[in-house]
Amino acid sequence: MRIGELSRRTGVPVPTIKYYVREGLLPPGELSSPNQAQYGEAHERRLRLIRALLDVGGLKVAAIADVLGAVDDPGRPLHKVLGAAADRLGAAGEADDDAEAAAARAAVGELIARRGWHTNESNPAAADLSRALAAMGRVGHGAFAELLDEYADAAEMVARADLGYVDRRVAVEDLVESVVIGTVLGEAVFNAMRRMAHVNASARLYGDDGEERGGNR
Amino acid sequence: MRIGELSRRTGVPVPTIKYYVREGLLPPGELSSPNQAQYGEAHERRLRLIRALLDVGGLKVAAIADVLGAVDDPGRPLHKVLGAAADRLGAAGEADDDAEAAAARAAVGELIARRGWHTNESNPAAADLSRALAAMGRVGHGAFAELLDEYADAAEMVARADLGYVDRRVAVEDLVESVVIGTVLGEAVFNAMRRMAHVNASARLYGDDGEERGGNR
Repeated sequence: MRIGELSRRTGVPVPTIKYYVREGLLPPGELSSPNQAQYGEAHERRLRLIRALLDVGGLKVAAIADVLGAVDDPGRPLHKVLGAAADRLGAAGEADDDAEAAAARAAVGELIARRGWHTNESNPAAADLSRALAAMGRVGHGAFAELLDEYADAAEMVARADLGYVDRRVAVEDLVESVVIGTVLGEAVFNAMRRMAHVNASARLYGDDGEERGGNR
Repeated sequence: MRIGELSRRTGVPVPTIKYYVREGLLPPGELSSPNQAQYGEAHERRLRLIRALLDVGGLKVAAIADVLGAVDDPGRPLHKVLGAAADRLGAAGEADDDAEAAAARAAVGELIARRGWHTNESNPAAADLSRALAAMGRVGHGAFAELLDEYADAAEMVARADLGYVDRRVAVEDLVESVVIGTVLGEAVFNAMRRMAHVNASARLYGDDGEERGGNR
């Protein structure tokens, strides 16, 4: 199909499609004449993925280029591509070296040991967890670390559901792309559900009618 | 304290502090002379909160101004302030009207009814959930909706832990600020943990040594 048809099918404006091609997010079309390129279903699918990662996942264009680079890398074994894609989806950022950062790293190390998780503190996700806990500590919520095991129980439950889905529904050739989708959009799904569950839990705890804390248990 | 001391204590550069004051994120200091302002502990605390929301929560300056405006609103009853703060933390964005959006909204409505949740489809978190599910559908993962109840079980577990923490650890006067912190940083904590749990679950399922899917169960 021509670029205009690709634009109509996906709702992405033509100049935006050209921008994604320039930035390396989308492979160029196949030239059918010197100034006419043809696009196929793979382009349509990739374009929908880019929009989902941008709009719902909140990723930036540079981060998407980076993740898709890992997805498209043909030379690496599957588990390395999976790891590289997952590592690029984190917040990254520098590690701090104040007391809260040290306490958070220790708490994460203990959590990994206690749960017997096959991962270690240098994993980017573990580093992100340390950063989030350290930030909690700096705003006076160091005690939040009390909840780590309850969060870990819930995270294991979600991870089991995710892996089961991959096993039932995802073909091997779609595995890496599905992991990117599941990681990014699955976070958006869970975060929205957690907020809905908060509304529900506090309605039950504090009453629907705006009574003060403790007034309606 | 003077602005230089506030900067030293928080690690935020003086020009950045002045920018936050101009943008309404941080109240101005109290003038002790025509060109000398004094800052107190409330400023220090607020500045740490702003940094946490920016660095770990990934919120934009405009979104933080909006949320803090709800936190600081003195005229409204507690539950309305809580609701307003929570509503501003979502992804918002326009609703689409394609087949995937309709299917996603129906799935979310059924989920709310099935769980008996005290919330409804017009809640911003429910709208965010619909958007995330619709995006999944558009990239070929409509079947992900199969996992909604497993995600909901995990979200209820986390929400119970969060509410228990608030009940044990948070004074009423800090409630709104704590809800903002818990919503934003708690998401970062859970998202990092979910990624760690994925690494762990796939190491157990597929083996540590990069064997192919199905090779090592």
